[in-house]
Parts: sequence; structure tokens; C-alpha cells
Amino acid sequence: MTQKPLIFITNDDGYLSNGIKLLEDILRPMGKVVVVAPSKEMSGQSHSITVGKPLKLSCIKKEDNFEEYSLEGTPVDCVKMAFDKVLNRKPDFLFAGINHGSNVSINTIYSGTMAAVMEGCSEGVASVGFSLCDDDKHGDLSFCLPFVKQIAENVIKHSLPTDVCLNVNFPVGEIKGIKVGHQAKGYWSEDFTMSEQEDGKRIFWLGGEYHCLDKSEQADWNIIHNNYAAVVPMQVDFTAYKLIKEMKERFDS
Amino acid sequence: MTQKPLIFITNDDGYLSNGIKLLEDILRPMGKVVVVAPSKEMSGQSHSITVGKPLKLSCIKKEDNFEEYSLEGTPVDCVKMAFDKVLNRKPDFLFAGINHGSNVSINTIYSGTMAAVMEGCSEGVASVGFSLCDDDKHGDLSFCLPFVKQIAENVIKHSLPTDVCLNVNFPVGEIKGIKVGHQAKGYWSEDFTMSEQEDGKRIFWLGGEYHCLDKSEQADWNIIHNNYAAVVPMQVDFTAYKLIKEMKERFDS
Repeated sequence: MTQKPLIFITNDDGYLSNGIKLLEDILRPMGKVVVVAPSKEMSGQSHSITVGKPLKLSCIKKEDNFEEYSLEGTPVDCVKMAFDKVLNRKPDFLFAGINHGSNVSINTIYSGTMAAVMEGCSEGVASVGFSLCDDDKHGDLSFCLPFVKQIAENVIKHSLPTDVCLNVNFPVGEIKGIKVGHQAKGYWSEDFTMSEQEDGKRIFWLGGEYHCLDKSEQADWNIIHNNYAAVVPMQVDFTAYKLIKEMKERFDS
Repeated sequence: MTQKPLIFITNDDGYLSNGIKLLEDILRPMGKVVVVAPSKEMSGQSHSITVGKPLKLSCIKKEDNFEEYSLEGTPVDCVKMAFDKVLNRKPDFLFAGINHGSNVSINTIYSGTMAAVMEGCSEGVASVGFSLCDDDKHGDLSFCLPFVKQIAENVIKHSLPTDVCLNVNFPVGEIKGIKVGHQAKGYWSEDFTMSEQEDGKRIFWLGGEYHCLDKSEQADWNIIHNNYAAVVPMQVDFTAYKLIKEMKERFDS
């Protein structure tokens, strides 16, 4: 009998969120599952790490083939803590989510969930992030669960190519199927609201509006809007290789 | 006479750091300069944004063609605040740094300075980040200043291709010239130290060691170690395009 795979789970909504509980339920029959997730919501924390102050780790549950911890830190802190101090080795797989909120297009760069996935990928672990495109923390995840199971089984059976992770997003409501595509080109315009004045300091609350600049049917934003799940293979290398030659001509000395 | 370009400056070391003061000195003769930088150090904050709490903005200095503000927020908050509320329009150029610490290889993903650059790029602004590969906040920046000036002049004269920003890193000490290259493949292994126990919670301090996995002479890590400045063109699109076909065969349904 082959050994059960070691599966690590994290998220950015915190260890008590609905999304992570449902992900745990799906993955527990597939291997030994260890969860280290933030003690509270850490959305929008991106790839930030905690430097200059310590991290507090609490054991929530310890059973045969299932352990759950909460960490007073960011999602990337959770990955690093798990790999070094909880698992004492790199896991076979990292799954993050199910995130309450969209991580299509430029959202992936702000996301703590996808940062955890990128961190796993950078350390050589087959890593997948799942997100429901619904900011409501009680959004209905029932339609996406069969697809989470299908993708997780596929990844556990066949792993992933080196240096590639998956960003999986689900539309709200019924899902027609799965389409692989690319990160849609788009951006958030800012719209701060000023709330009060204090000690000569102006006080603002961040707001904004997303603008999709990508008309391709293969862009994840558009895949979602056609009611398919969007799967985007991602890499941790941000180099714009197509521009290296032109930039060499401009700057090499 | 053509109008002076509007140049925006930020960083992640805070508005009082040596690096940003020297960058201001270099750029002020080149246009109208507006600085919005964090009120305190924000290293390792990556692309995080402040949600659920307000941002406080303070005006430090306002002169002809030069304004300086500090913001109690992250580097990406600074970019968003500047574009929406301080400049009231997108600037012509964004320069970040000079960062005290390396942003080569995987470091770019943790960096608040490079996150500000990526944010500017995502919003269509020609954006460049400068970093000295020396964690000492009082590290000697004198060798890199002529190269900062040269690259800034080049970018202000010729701008940058759409959707591309530059990550510029300088070695410590004398610099032989500039080489354009790619983000070195590498990762940080974790090495937490446990300091004390409190309320049943274990307390850890993050530490780690960088491992370069890239032997290419064109990798930024190796360019720096050959005493050249490394310029890497970067994009905000993380899609691993080479893998789309293979992933479509596996997952499309």
C-alpha cells in the first residue's frame, strides 16, 4: 500500500470560514490533511510576511490524519510556518481556499489566498487556489464543490508541472463546466471616500471599481461571466521575456 | 516649451529613508515631483492594501514643483491614494526606492517597493523600482546614483512599452555597468526561531535563507554577483502561457 499524500490547506479568510471547512471535507478522504490558517480574516494581504514581530501559533484540533492550527499572521506566514515547524517537511500538495471573493484578473495580485499558492509553488509544492466570485462570506458554495473535488483528485493523481500552480475561480450559481485560460488584463481604479479630519490628517477609506480590458474569451474574467469555472496556470516568474531584447539594446552597458 | 512631466515617487522604507531622499534629489530637476510614501517602514508588505480601516494622509511639504506626503498605509495604498486624491490624475512616471535591500529573484514578490511599481504598471503608468542589495538602512548609495540618473533620464525620454515595468537592482560597492536579464529562479527556505510560550500559544520569529536555483548569467541574482546593475522588465500577468495547452487537455469540460 502506498503512503497517503500529505495535504496542506490554508486560506486568507481565516480558519473558521465556510470555504475552508468545505475544502477540508473534500480533501480529508484523499490523504493526511494539515490546516494552518490565519486566526482572522487576512484578505488583501497579498504576499506580505510578518517581519519584526513574532507569530503566535495555536493548535485547534489534532486527530488521526487531520490537524488544524490557527496562526496570528498572514497566509504566506501560514505556509512558511507549516513547512518549517508544523509539517517539518514540504507537503505533497497545497490547496488554498475556498476563497470568498473573486481572484480573477488583477485580483490575484492582491489576494492572500493566491499568495499562499504562489509561495507553495516557489518552494516546489504542487499548489492550487480555489475562489468563489462572491464577496459574501456566506455565499453558496454548493455548485462549485463537485468541481473542487474533480480538480483536486486530478492534481493529486497527476501532480502539476514544475514551477506552475493553478488559480481556479468559480462563477456564482450553476456552473457549465471548466475552461482553462489566462489572467484577464484589467485594473482597479481608485475611489477613496474622505470620512473625517483628525490632527490635521485627512482620513480616507479605500474603494474602487474593476475595469476589464480583455475581450478574449480565454480571459478568466470572461470565462467566469460565461458561467464556466476558470483555471489559469500561473508562475512565480514575473519577467516580461518578450521585452528582454529591446531592453538590452536600451540599457546594457 | 513642453510641460514638465509629473513624476510620482514612493517606497516601502518610509518617507524619511535615505534612499527616497536621494531619489528625490535626482528626479526633482526632471519634472514636477510628488512623493506619497509610508509614514513608517513597510518592507515585506508586498501588494497588500488596507481594507476595513481608514488611511491617514499628512502633508509634509508643499513647494513649487515638489510635494511630499506621508500615509499611514502600505506602498500600494500610497500609489492608489496619490493617483486618486493627491495628484487627481495618473502621473507620467512612477519611481520607487531607492530600496534598502535586494529585490532580485523571488524577493520581488515580497517587496512593497516592487508592488508599488507593479500597481503603477497595472494602471498604465511607466514605472521603475530601484533597490540596493544591502539590508543596512545606512548602506552606501553613492555608487548607484549615476545609474539611477541614467535609467530615469532614459525612461523619461523614451517611456516604457505598455504593460511593462522595470525592476532595477544594484550591487554593493563599485558597479561595472548595466545588464538586462530575468528574475532568477530561487526561493527562501524557512528557519523560524521559537522565543517563548504564552497562553498555550507558541511564539515564533520568521527567519530564512535564500537559495538560488538559476545558473544563467542573465539571472538577476548572478548579474548582481558579477558587480553589474540588473534591469529586469516585468509584467503583471502571471499566466504560465506555455502550459495552457497541456492544462486545457487535462481540465477543459
